[in-house]
Amino acid sequence: MSNPSILILPGDGIGPEVMTEVRKIIDWFGAKRDLAFDVSEDLVGGAAYDKHGVPLADETMAKAQEVDAVLLGAVGGPKYDVLDFSVKPERGLLRLRKEMDLFANLRPAQCFDALADFSSLKKDVVAGLDIMIVRELTSGVYFGEPRGIFEEGNERVGINTQRYTESEIERVARAAFELAMKRNKKLCSMEKANVMESGILWREVVTRVGEDYPDVELSHMYADNGAMQLVRWPKQFDVIVTDNLFGDILSDCAAMLTGSLGMLPSASLGAPMENGRPKALYEPVHGSAPDIAGQGKANPIACILSFAMALRYSFDQGAEADRLEAAVQTVLADGVRTADLMGPEGGVPVSTAEMGDKIVAAL
Amino acid sequence: MSNPSILILPGDGIGPEVMTEVRKIIDWFGAKRDLAFDVSEDLVGGAAYDKHGVPLADETMAKAQEVDAVLLGAVGGPKYDVLDFSVKPERGLLRLRKEMDLFANLRPAQCFDALADFSSLKKDVVAGLDIMIVRELTSGVYFGEPRGIFEEGNERVGINTQRYTESEIERVARAAFELAMKRNKKLCSMEKANVMESGILWREVVTRVGEDYPDVELSHMYADNGAMQLVRWPKQFDVIVTDNLFGDILSDCAAMLTGSLGMLPSASLGAPMENGRPKALYEPVHGSAPDIAGQGKANPIACILSFAMALRYSFDQGAEADRLEAAVQTVLADGVRTADLMGPEGGVPVSTAEMGDKIVAAL
Ligand SMILES: CC(C)[C@H](C(=O)O)[C@@H](O)C(=O)O
Ligand SMILES: CC(C)[C@H](C(=O)O)[C@@H](O)C(=O)O
Repeated sequence: MSNPSILILPGDGIGPEVMTEVRKIIDWFGAKRDLAFDVSEDLVGGAAYDKHGVPLADETMAKAQEVDAVLLGAVGGPKYDVLDFSVKPERGLLRLRKEMDLFANLRPAQCFDALADFSSLKKDVVAGLDIMIVRELTSGVYFGEPRGIFEEGNERVGINTQRYTESEIERVARAAFELAMKRNKKLCSMEKANVMESGILWREVVTRVGEDYPDVELSHMYADNGAMQLVRWPKQFDVIVTDNLFGDILSDCAAMLTGSLGMLPSASLGAPMENGRPKALYEPVHGSAPDIAGQGKANPIACILSFAMALRYSFDQGAEADRLEAAVQTVLADGVRTADLMGPEGGVPVSTAEMGDKIVAAL
Repeated sequence: MSNPSILILPGDGIGPEVMTEVRKIIDWFGAKRDLAFDVSEDLVGGAAYDKHGVPLADETMAKAQEVDAVLLGAVGGPKYDVLDFSVKPERGLLRLRKEMDLFANLRPAQCFDALADFSSLKKDVVAGLDIMIVRELTSGVYFGEPRGIFEEGNERVGINTQRYTESEIERVARAAFELAMKRNKKLCSMEKANVMESGILWREVVTRVGEDYPDVELSHMYADNGAMQLVRWPKQFDVIVTDNLFGDILSDCAAMLTGSLGMLPSASLGAPMENGRPKALYEPVHGSAPDIAGQGKANPIACILSFAMALRYSFDQGAEADRLEAAVQTVLADGVRTADLMGPEGGVPVSTAEMGDKIVAAL
């Protein structure tokens, strides 16, 4: 049997340098844990545009469809701001999400003990925080038609369409309930059913799916109140499920609560492939950070933890994922710090590459 | 010349009891400052539904169009959750906003010194915070067509439409620049121009309007990053301008940062009427709080400060607005506290009515 396959798409900005560290981790699992992967690499975002004139080449798209998991670094940078909407770096990422049909975006917002002081929130509000936001990723206003800028009378109008079918809501709701079953059996669904009909349908379908999960305590919240409650007392939540646009904003808000932005991974999962594995893409929550790119300052942990999520969700290696996460905790507990993690209490300053090496050593 | 007119719509939940306190304040200005108003009162929300079967009667709508300012308490309550979308309490409020064409919703997020400890954020992050969110209020996904739940194939689909014309963006942008000119000359516009064409048009029009305000430092931010930055370091902002839906979420997030939710007013302004005053509705940011309604526990300050905004924006009485705001500060500094403001450091516990009396006394 051949090894499971991984396609690495480092992308732009700090993407390539953090991905170099992930490769060290992947190599370690191959050498020491008999978990070898067939790894290939390709371009996405601005890097793909520079070479192909598009932010994702068709051949890359085809490769992504075939592998067992895609690992993505980050896309975008000021250099590409002037590009037309249709070829902006983000379109490469959105194309991957859409064509791989990665409908369930899992965004853990977790506060690392060693880093709780970095949060702008009070320590007791965030210490030990561990919530999971499940964001719908392939529909809603991101992809709905009609969309565009049109002439109307003597002016222009910008239009986007929020659109959710019952089955689109159902499958992401089911993914969220399944996760809730494995965690604390509490799920909160967020929409604006008081204002949007798509929110009414959302609430109705989530409620119906909930009948299959009587052990999960389901609640509903308007998304504006959700933002408030995340700020007020985030530990009231376990799993949150919400649509593409609300999920974009609320998951970023939740990520920032933790103060551990450079630490947060994400998984985007689709339907099972023939081999039983879900279509999957893993990426850090942080962006391409062009201001520090190429300087060895970037924190590779979010990207490394994204690989841990791959071990767990794509390769059924929960114990190995635990091992990797524990290695990260150890390194943090030892005071090892990239620049973004260096607080008033000091620590051992390291570069991107040194952080990768320390984590390998801790493994 | 007749007195300026105010229509009071107490609405549901704690709306009526906080509005009783506002009337004391209005009466004081009439008696002591020679600022008499013609005050009338009517129903909105669930209260209107109970009487008329609709959340806003046509006669009430007509009255709202005629007065110089509307003061609204709050709408909604669990009793009305079962109602059809079209007659839910919120529709009364949305009808007022739409038909009065109140396109600029001003939501100050201000942290009161005496209450900074209530914030879930660290004191240095929020102490002295004073930002203003200008939310577009009459368009976008709240009102765009087509909308509804439709049959499609063998399932249903929920649809809403995000729609912004150039002139809709322009007028709210202008309102935001005008405010920025009176404040710290810094404006940040938020959208998702990387994903939504309506956001591209938004950014373009705001940039164009900015050419008329060369003294204002204009920046643009994606709304997800905006949510992050609000949590990370809100004092980086002065005025923020954004659309109806992003504004709903981001202004609630900003409000919760302050820890002073029971304190925050809002103004919704439209075009100038014949007498030069803008169409205007003032309401607290908090909701109807059905759990504590009728118990004399509610904090009337947000509603009272909404009247202060009316003095400033509708009646050109900035000095009197300052006087009222100073009276609120005095009462807070004296340790006077409704239940929601009672922290570990204690204070003088008062009821809704006593808080109103104390503020009148401080005037
Ligand atoms: C880069 C951008 C298109 C993307 C999004 O809006 O989904 C990002 O913000 C994210 O959350 O992954
Ligand atoms: C009550 C509701 C319709 C309203 C809104 O969504 O605009 C509220 O959340 C607000 O922000 O004023």
